[in-house]
Amino acid sequence: MPLTPDQQAEVDAQRAQAQPTLRAVSPGMEKHLYTAIPVLDHGFVRVIDYMGDDAAICQAARVSYGKGTKSVQNDEGLIRYLMRHWHSTPFEMCEVKLHVKLPVFVARQWIRHRTANVNEYSARYSILDREFYIPAPEHLAAQSVVNNQGRGAALEGEEAARVLEILKTDANRAYDHYEAMISQDGQLGLARELARMNLPANIYTQWYWKVDLHNLLHFLRLRADAHAQYEIRVYADAICKVVADWVPFAYKAFEDYRMGGATMSATALDCVRRMLKGEDVTQENSGMSKGEWREFIDTLG
Amino acid sequence: MPLTPDQQAEVDAQRAQAQPTLRAVSPGMEKHLYTAIPVLDHGFVRVIDYMGDDAAICQAARVSYGKGTKSVQNDEGLIRYLMRHWHSTPFEMCEVKLHVKLPVFVARQWIRHRTANVNEYSARYSILDREFYIPAPEHLAAQSVVNNQGRGAALEGEEAARVLEILKTDANRAYDHYEAMISQDGQLGLARELARMNLPANIYTQWYWKVDLHNLLHFLRLRADAHAQYEIRVYADAICKVVADWVPFAYKAFEDYRMGGATMSATALDCVRRMLKGEDVTQENSGMSKGEWREFIDTLG
Amino acid sequence: MPLTPDQQAEVDAQRAQAQPTLRAVSPGMEKHLYTAIPVLDHGFVRVIDYMGDDAAICQAARVSYGKGTKSVQNDEGLIRYLMRHWHSTPFEMCEVKLHVKLPVFVARQWIRHRTANVNEYSARYSILDREFYIPAPEHLAAQSVVNNQGRGAALEGEEAARVLEILKTDANRAYDHYEAMISQDGQLGLARELARMNLPANIYTQWYWKVDLHNLLHFLRLRADAHAQYEIRVYADAICKVVADWVPFAYKAFEDYRMGGATMSATALDCVRRMLKGEDVTQENSGMSKGEWREFIDTLG
Amino acid sequence: MPLTPDQQAEVDAQRAQAQPTLRAVSPGMEKHLYTAIPVLDHGFVRVIDYMGDDAAICQAARVSYGKGTKSVQNDEGLIRYLMRHWHSTPFEMCEVKLHVKLPVFVARQWIRHRTANVNEYSARYSILDREFYIPAPEHLAAQSVVNNQGRGAALEGEEAARVLEILKTDANRAYDHYEAMISQDGQLGLARELARMNLPANIYTQWYWKVDLHNLLHFLRLRADAHAQYEIRVYADAICKVVADWVPFAYKAFEDYRMGGATMSATALDCVRRMLKGEDVTQENSGMSKGEWREFIDTLG
Repeated sequence: MPLTPDQQAEVDAQRAQAQPTLRAVSPGMEKHLYTAIPVLDHGFVRVIDYMGDDAAICQAARVSYGKGTKSVQNDEGLIRYLMRHWHSTPFEMCEVKLHVKLPVFVARQWIRHRTANVNEYSARYSILDREFYIPAPEHLAAQSVVNNQGRGAALEGEEAARVLEILKTDANRAYDHYEAMISQDGQLGLARELARMNLPANIYTQWYWKVDLHNLLHFLRLRADAHAQYEIRVYADAICKVVADWVPFAYKAFEDYRMGGATMSATALDCVRRMLKGEDVTQENSGMSKGEWREFIDTLG
Repeated sequence: MPLTPDQQAEVDAQRAQAQPTLRAVSPGMEKHLYTAIPVLDHGFVRVIDYMGDDAAICQAARVSYGKGTKSVQNDEGLIRYLMRHWHSTPFEMCEVKLHVKLPVFVARQWIRHRTANVNEYSARYSILDREFYIPAPEHLAAQSVVNNQGRGAALEGEEAARVLEILKTDANRAYDHYEAMISQDGQLGLARELARMNLPANIYTQWYWKVDLHNLLHFLRLRADAHAQYEIRVYADAICKVVADWVPFAYKAFEDYRMGGATMSATALDCVRRMLKGEDVTQENSGMSKGEWREFIDTLG
Repeated sequence: MPLTPDQQAEVDAQRAQAQPTLRAVSPGMEKHLYTAIPVLDHGFVRVIDYMGDDAAICQAARVSYGKGTKSVQNDEGLIRYLMRHWHSTPFEMCEVKLHVKLPVFVARQWIRHRTANVNEYSARYSILDREFYIPAPEHLAAQSVVNNQGRGAALEGEEAARVLEILKTDANRAYDHYEAMISQDGQLGLARELARMNLPANIYTQWYWKVDLHNLLHFLRLRADAHAQYEIRVYADAICKVVADWVPFAYKAFEDYRMGGATMSATALDCVRRMLKGEDVTQENSGMSKGEWREFIDTLG
Repeated sequence: MPLTPDQQAEVDAQRAQAQPTLRAVSPGMEKHLYTAIPVLDHGFVRVIDYMGDDAAICQAARVSYGKGTKSVQNDEGLIRYLMRHWHSTPFEMCEVKLHVKLPVFVARQWIRHRTANVNEYSARYSILDREFYIPAPEHLAAQSVVNNQGRGAALEGEEAARVLEILKTDANRAYDHYEAMISQDGQLGLARELARMNLPANIYTQWYWKVDLHNLLHFLRLRADAHAQYEIRVYADAICKVVADWVPFAYKAFEDYRMGGATMSATALDCVRRMLKGEDVTQENSGMSKGEWREFIDTLG
């Protein structure tokens, strides 16, 4: 369970206090504020704050004095046009602040997206909780045999049991030792900034993460993708649902032009043209390598 | 007058529509929303949106579940501590979006601050208005005789009159010709993206500018400084007042530690120590160049 | 003529001084160093420095101890793979520093690419030269009748002559007045930081611009594109040739996957699939707007 | 020992191949290229490439055609001026690329400096080595009793022995289990991207890190500081020595204005002025909190 009763009480208190504002308000986003969306076994995503809505994207694109909306239809058309032509600056005019609880090895992938603001819980200053990510059996995947950077079918039987046993036992022993080393009971106690080095990468950390909509969509395109590691993809999937409620037009355009779309090379476009003329195009006469050809056929599939 | 009646009507409409929100609300900032703060002869700064308040800075620094406030006193102390020790990430958790109307030569300085989001009115797409910055007589300054990058006393008499006449006449002639070139009356009309090249750097442009509080304070430190060009400083001064209303604790700490503070070199600190011991320190025995010494004495003045 | 004899002598001196280095050297880039590639009537692009080559991209991708090259063939394949899958960080490991002379209205577009380092010639501190961009007759384009943000055929006859006359006369008059205002002959002289406001946007400025290869390719994709304004496109075209000599594998992959490629939406991909099955797909049954459909047909054309 | 014989052979091969270049060459930096500077028990810093030197800083500041050097004396004075007045853009014109091997918990602090380019060794794709940071006895520090985010004296006797035993045993057991889980000997083998979660934060990783001089100096100011955690400070110290050899003028100015200098608040400056006038200033009448006063006295000490 991600939140303690005290934490839940704090969240409830925040959700009880609606105040008037003159700013743009997104009704779809208000319903998400502060509530913890559960992810993995102990993680969550919480919306702490947001700025802007679909109309704000149009307002910025038009550098307008008023709300930016002439008509709802115009707004959706403009947003699709901006997305299609990679006009990214109007999407940067929306911003969101999330509170995320996630395993350290997921945090290490996540932080590679640099255009965002982050405040992470400090293990120099504070003591981490005893919470570790232990995969559900169906996500205990084998190494892929075709792709070094991927995973295959789930482990089964004894092998799966052995892995789960290792992960649980090692995590708990590491935490027991972490506690023993920092304890000031009858000893000086090791500095927290040192003791944390004994903790494994499946321990949970948490941070505040603030990002503009353009960079968030870029993050989602890469991390909600089928090739992303499952453990970060579930966070991206959860955020996708939030964004769909926050800026529905922008999210729909994103789904059409980015998530569901594909980039074709000059060579690939040429092959499509030849195929449309009825030519029998094969990998051999395509000008593509085997890897490219396989991806190309997948795209057309 | 910066706003037309139509624009004012749009602003009034926005200010009339308070809506409930669960987000952090800064009462001091709500009163600024959408109203145009006049700057220079035709420019303005308008607050379009904001995210966060003083409590949000503390909440992020603590990665907390609730509002971040244990007590108001604690919040101010924490904010001062963060500012004093250059912990910049919690200040990045607040964000503001401004609509600014400003002369092009000011915009060119402003844009050098890269960590911000910008949507500028497009002179490729649209036709610029006939609005030029003409300095008030008291700001028609002579070139400084001591500093290549500065200005001296105001011009007077005939010289001042001649300069004003030039600025007004050239601007209007350039605009007349701009209109004549793009006119499609009896001719094809030059492309807007080309015709704009005839317009001088005192023509007004406008943009939406979105920035986080940390980067905004950095901008203000450099641009509200006495060494900044007057024409950008007045924008910075206007924004300072807005920030003081938005995040009063953060702004007060900024005034103490940044605006009113100074960075001393190792050499300068050593001189202060020697002076406090009663030693007679002069430029010659200070280890500083003449320029550094002059700045040092100014700081202690 | 872009360089004065003194400047040319400085350039020649730099080109005469080869020194030994242990760093990666790109022979194709060495030949460009310091020489001014002319662009427009008075502009240029000069390569001042560079870091890395094709092998350095691979070396970083592999986080290797040695040169990164197992074989030239492997390197090209790896670079194509990285480009195809949007793995941008290895391309960020190459860097280039350019000295560019360009009209102010081009500089204003250029600077919107924020992920770069810039030092611009200061008109607060120094006096600008009397050099203005005057379009060649064949580039004196009319406003497009189909696209607000574009241009049509070249102006002809009297209209063209009138425009050229305006651009030349206004620029020179503005510069005469600029000189008259800052003159300290018998008067105080207006501050340079103010006098510059009288100068039109076709005056030339110059800057040092440093950028990594990933961000440079992004710049080139947008600015060497047919929809970019001609006056910035010629700079992008000149830089494309430099990049082709510097990192030939990366540039070739860029041409195939970015410049010559296209992004297709989910809807567009679906139409391609239907067309390949022999279905008669029209705008009406495509699910696309008229604008999208036109662009789609262009892509397949 | 940080490098294997094979790796050392690759480094030696690179160091044997000087090639001519027309670029700026820093003799002090050439001697560092590719050699591994040992840090901690298994880590290192290697200079892979660099761009620019002291003269290049001046050249960019002057937007000059030639080398930027009028005289060496002028260059040093200009660099000091730029550093003193926070003119950061000329320092951004130098760039360095490092190969760093470091414990994961150090990497997690390091990566918070976002304005840099990074390629990290991928534990999704590859298998990590059995190398862990185990502190030397004199760095096995106790938790500070005055500062939550700091450390006190070294542990001694049995307590120290117990901690070292835990760190070594847990690391090796975790690695044994990592190997056992990914083994494909008689079982499918857990995916690498999952197995890594069992590894503790003192395991070594490595990356290519590329950064401009301005941002590097900012990193060094924070991480070579006495308040930084020892385990990252030793990396910063090693890099400081490299920078001192690379750009000696810039580094000297950095030492004077940044590392050895201090920022004083308006209140602190006022106290200094009062003290210089002979007034007896105490914490009580200083206007500072106890914490601020203590830091102020330290600065003057």
